[in-house]
Amino acid sequence: MRHKSNLPSELRRYLTDADVSDDPAVLDNYGHDETPNLSADPGAVVFPRSIEQVQKIVRFANETATPLVPSGGRSGLSGGANAVAGELIVSFDRMSEILDFSSGDRSVRLQPGVVTGQLQSFVSQKGLYFPIDFASRDSSHIGGNIATNAGGIKVIRYGMTRDWVTGLKVVTGEGELLDLNRGLHKNATGYDLRHLFIGSEGTLGFIVEATLRLARRPGPSQVLLLAVPELLAVVSILTVFQDRFDLNAFEFFSELALQHVLKAKSLPHPFDKSTPFYALIDLECDSDSELSRISELYEFCLKRGWTAGNVASTTEAQVRQLWIYREAISESIRPYNPHKNDISVIVSKLPAFLEELDSLLAREYPTLDFVWFGHIGDGNLHLNVLKPSALSTEEFHQKCKGVDATVFSTVRRYSGSVSAEHGVGLLKKDVLAYTRSQAEITYMREVKAIFDPNGIMNPGKIFD
Amino acid sequence: MRHKSNLPSELRRYLTDADVSDDPAVLDNYGHDETPNLSADPGAVVFPRSIEQVQKIVRFANETATPLVPSGGRSGLSGGANAVAGELIVSFDRMSEILDFSSGDRSVRLQPGVVTGQLQSFVSQKGLYFPIDFASRDSSHIGGNIATNAGGIKVIRYGMTRDWVTGLKVVTGEGELLDLNRGLHKNATGYDLRHLFIGSEGTLGFIVEATLRLARRPGPSQVLLLAVPELLAVVSILTVFQDRFDLNAFEFFSELALQHVLKAKSLPHPFDKSTPFYALIDLECDSDSELSRISELYEFCLKRGWTAGNVASTTEAQVRQLWIYREAISESIRPYNPHKNDISVIVSKLPAFLEELDSLLAREYPTLDFVWFGHIGDGNLHLNVLKPSALSTEEFHQKCKGVDATVFSTVRRYSGSVSAEHGVGLLKKDVLAYTRSQAEITYMREVKAIFDPNGIMNPGKIFD
Repeated sequence: MRHKSNLPSELRRYLTDADVSDDPAVLDNYGHDETPNLSADPGAVVFPRSIEQVQKIVRFANETATPLVPSGGRSGLSGGANAVAGELIVSFDRMSEILDFSSGDRSVRLQPGVVTGQLQSFVSQKGLYFPIDFASRDSSHIGGNIATNAGGIKVIRYGMTRDWVTGLKVVTGEGELLDLNRGLHKNATGYDLRHLFIGSEGTLGFIVEATLRLARRPGPSQVLLLAVPELLAVVSILTVFQDRFDLNAFEFFSELALQHVLKAKSLPHPFDKSTPFYALIDLECDSDSELSRISELYEFCLKRGWTAGNVASTTEAQVRQLWIYREAISESIRPYNPHKNDISVIVSKLPAFLEELDSLLAREYPTLDFVWFGHIGDGNLHLNVLKPSALSTEEFHQKCKGVDATVFSTVRRYSGSVSAEHGVGLLKKDVLAYTRSQAEITYMREVKAIFDPNGIMNPGKIFD
Repeated sequence: MRHKSNLPSELRRYLTDADVSDDPAVLDNYGHDETPNLSADPGAVVFPRSIEQVQKIVRFANETATPLVPSGGRSGLSGGANAVAGELIVSFDRMSEILDFSSGDRSVRLQPGVVTGQLQSFVSQKGLYFPIDFASRDSSHIGGNIATNAGGIKVIRYGMTRDWVTGLKVVTGEGELLDLNRGLHKNATGYDLRHLFIGSEGTLGFIVEATLRLARRPGPSQVLLLAVPELLAVVSILTVFQDRFDLNAFEFFSELALQHVLKAKSLPHPFDKSTPFYALIDLECDSDSELSRISELYEFCLKRGWTAGNVASTTEAQVRQLWIYREAISESIRPYNPHKNDISVIVSKLPAFLEELDSLLAREYPTLDFVWFGHIGDGNLHLNVLKPSALSTEEFHQKCKGVDATVFSTVRRYSGSVSAEHGVGLLKKDVLAYTRSQAEITYMREVKAIFDPNGIMNPGKIFD
């Protein structure tokens, strides 16, 4: 049921005209994230400029039973930022300042609307490094990254967004401002509510400020692209490299994924002979002795038959060039309107899981193309189903429902996650119980009721 | 009020005789942790051998309103494992198996009663590394480490216990078994309850199994002991070293702390001329080029006047020798029955905080000796007040209450933590509000009520 009220005029009592909008173009822009095929129907958008204004909006929402949807860079892929029933969208576009930087603490304090790439550039100028990185770096907001505990391409070395948040200010569903952990590295004083809000997708409260720790800027990268004949060998290569080096990234993609990149980017095949899989290894390397240790390890893998060949970068330009084979996959398959899934299992189960699921899908859906790639060092696979041009959108969606059923039941059998890093939002709530037990879901609902007793914070996301 | 019931005979209906005890010697041993000057009065001790038995005990406790106290290695320093009013102690001594090891996942699955040092040796034999390390490594249990989110000497590189737990089985206060996160690296499916249980000191549920990730075994260490004339210079040295290297540890201690070690261990002073402070830097170094980068950086610090001299290790034996100056402090001052505090602030505020607090204390308590040391790279200070032989225990305790009042009010003014890594337990609950707001404490109580509605899990710990 659509939420009914004369929202904009009521809100203008709290905010200036310029900070409230029900302009259809604005609603259309702010009403949804990048999840395909979801409807959106927002009631209005507000653009608070301060924590106090966020608190006023939340109190107003409690008094008037107005459901709120938080809005960051809207690069999400699970509909977590979609307004679907006349909700009031709270955009953090006008809370986008970097407030403080401390070299002694190696930390930065900022508003939630700072864009990931903007933060990366800022700290780079200070000689430091913010390691959370992914393709949507130039649109995603830090607030949104925290709300979904974003991962990305460097998790194997640096962990998830969660691991970089030392302080978090949130406005709870009751309008209460909590100043959690205040930038401390060590603080053993009871339950760490900070970690409860990280990854809660705006359902407990809104993130209004964060303190992030920063890393030493890593030295130059060496990138190896390995041709891999057998899936099992990908994990063997991972294990021996991980035992000797702190890897920046260990990515994987299939020959089909590579073919789409080569076509879209008009690139030659990097190897004379193709193999079913490729692994991309990125590691810090700033000396000749390291370089020779890397090449010894490659020879070891070659002798074992784990790899059929190798292209290595020796310059920064070559590093960027090799990363294109991995990073351009999503863009290259976009014309095929892919149906996406983001799933994970533990690393050791990954070869069996992928082989079983891929052959199940090939048998059940022989006319569909399945493009596999992902962050294999984290057990995280992105599965993309391409729409054949012969199928109507409607027919394709019907088929994808069947694909999903196979994917999620296989994930459940392997004790995996139905959403590795994209969150639950609207898209995965029907299969939440495939990864979380009923007892866990019951406790989650009870936790939600504590922080958001009137159910106004992003209702209908994660669970109904 | 002491809990009354014929506990042992009731319990023997669920457990074998051998797994229940009310022998006074056993009660005396299991009734408390290492916190000095706290009373203990346990009702009985049980030694479950399985998760099912833990669930039975928790259900029994709910039915009979029996308060439970979890018991690990009892090396805690806040009374978190003390039974003070006839509670039933649940010891995890008989759940101490390493259940599973996976090299592909670089992980280990274990029962809560595994001793930290035992796990370190086990994974070392597998060519890997478990980096959570501290002086009580040979008695502390992994379950206890998780329950207090233990830190220690390598947090600056490896983080806290929290950062190594990929899976956690807990029995909640309702007797419900939750299997949280199941070893996954990426799992964005709603609230991460795992992080709520980590650091909850047994007040929400008991940890009955854990999956831990493991690290690559680091290369050989280089250790530098620097003489530092000014406190501010300690942070300057930290900043320049941290910008160039991944430090394993950055520790600090005062001349007075060093003097106690030299006396207790009959060691010569490491420097010709003493300075008020010393910094110990431990970093991975496996090449001559790294060694020369380290020594260039030392020269830089020397030129700026940040350090007055340096002793560097060149062999493994020397590394161990230099660590003695830091690790033997606690043991060296034990004969003075020290009153301990474990506090933290953000790193950049540390020099001002320490100088202000030290001079406040020196003015208010001119007859007491204050020994400072700690994990300065994490903003974490251990303050030890030594008992003068002329003072009675009673008089000393009275004085220490005054010291604590000064310490905690200074911590509050600096937005620090009254317990950096030792937890709240019984000892810090009166000052919990110095670090956490009333709103946070209210939410924490509500969270407790969800998982432990009858208040049987470690009651009276963290808050009343």
